[in-house]
Amino acid sequence: MSRVRVHNFSISLDGFGTGEGQSAEEPFGHAGQRLHEWFFETRTFRAMTGQPGGGTGVDDAVAGEWNTGIGAEIMGRNKFGPQRGPWEDHEWKGWWGPNPPFHTPVFVMTRHPRPSVEMEGGTIFHFVDATPQEVLRRAREAAGDLDVRIGGGPAIVRAFLEADLVDHLHLVVVPIVLGRGVRLWDGLEGIEQRFRVESVTTPGGVTHVTFTRP
Amino acid sequence: MSRVRVHNFSISLDGFGTGEGQSAEEPFGHAGQRLHEWFFETRTFRAMTGQPGGGTGVDDAVAGEWNTGIGAEIMGRNKFGPQRGPWEDHEWKGWWGPNPPFHTPVFVMTRHPRPSVEMEGGTIFHFVDATPQEVLRRAREAAGDLDVRIGGGPAIVRAFLEADLVDHLHLVVVPIVLGRGVRLWDGLEGIEQRFRVESVTTPGGVTHVTFTRP
Repeated sequence: MSRVRVHNFSISLDGFGTGEGQSAEEPFGHAGQRLHEWFFETRTFRAMTGQPGGGTGVDDAVAGEWNTGIGAEIMGRNKFGPQRGPWEDHEWKGWWGPNPPFHTPVFVMTRHPRPSVEMEGGTIFHFVDATPQEVLRRAREAAGDLDVRIGGGPAIVRAFLEADLVDHLHLVVVPIVLGRGVRLWDGLEGIEQRFRVESVTTPGGVTHVTFTRP
Repeated sequence: MSRVRVHNFSISLDGFGTGEGQSAEEPFGHAGQRLHEWFFETRTFRAMTGQPGGGTGVDDAVAGEWNTGIGAEIMGRNKFGPQRGPWEDHEWKGWWGPNPPFHTPVFVMTRHPRPSVEMEGGTIFHFVDATPQEVLRRAREAAGDLDVRIGGGPAIVRAFLEADLVDHLHLVVVPIVLGRGVRLWDGLEGIEQRFRVESVTTPGGVTHVTFTRP
């Protein structure tokens, strides 16, 4: 059976996966870029965004796993865009320009479905109002033999963890104290007991933590 | 000027420094021993508690700094004992037996002062109802040229961090999700900006994080 994976999910020392006050200008709210600076330095991120260069150390090696063997992504509406409530603007097609880096079907969880949007390069956004189990069923169908990635944000990752649907969780603990925003861990007491846990700190100062289903 | 230091302060991935439901049987509440298993394995801990053996790797090297050059400790009442409110039992003299491992004056912060208690081996417990600044002034006076350790629990460490009185903070992030208890980070947004931060993961699976005033 294909696995369900989370990759490159940054959290602060106090457990926030994004800051407060998300907007078109600040997708991570008051956190700004602080949760992802480690990622911007990697060759993986540079390649995703059409830039040359980037580091090729351990951060990059771990970051680069995000897209290996993935056949579909599931994301929350807040990852897709800054709008809330009924869609007022169907022109919004995500943060990623005409050719998003996913190149697979992407299932956007929202209580406000809208027609699918086909992008260049194989990315198709589907908008679904359904439980994690049902969305996963559809994503697995689309992914064939490949794995399904849970792309975030924190509320979506938490919902799939709570439903015990995640097989591999890669977190990046960034040593900052955000103080406010959306917490990853609420309601997940003792979740480490379901997983084999490994941690490694890299010279950039972040700690990669993987939770893998044994 | 002598420094103010915190050592071997374990927190969970979700930022709790102790669990819920502290009692005489469970000093860390529902966390049990999970936050401190890494510490029990060290030679430092074994020596503190009169046991032979213990590991001498990086965990032990870092743990062993707790008592170097320390002239006084400040702790919260909840670290001293499980009683709350007015003292009903002056017979309680801490968790540590007749010869506690501190061997210095120890200032116990409480709204319910009581007479000082002199133990074997140089430990004297003083009970003070005062601000962090005032308690620190007294501890520094007692410590002479030596440093002052803030011994915890989480509310006390947080109070001294909030008052910007800490020069060296050594945390140990244990990859468990406690879900409830006392949080270290509340009210400390952005505190990392005052410090130089380093992290290192050890084979035992914990991450030592030091915040040092530049």
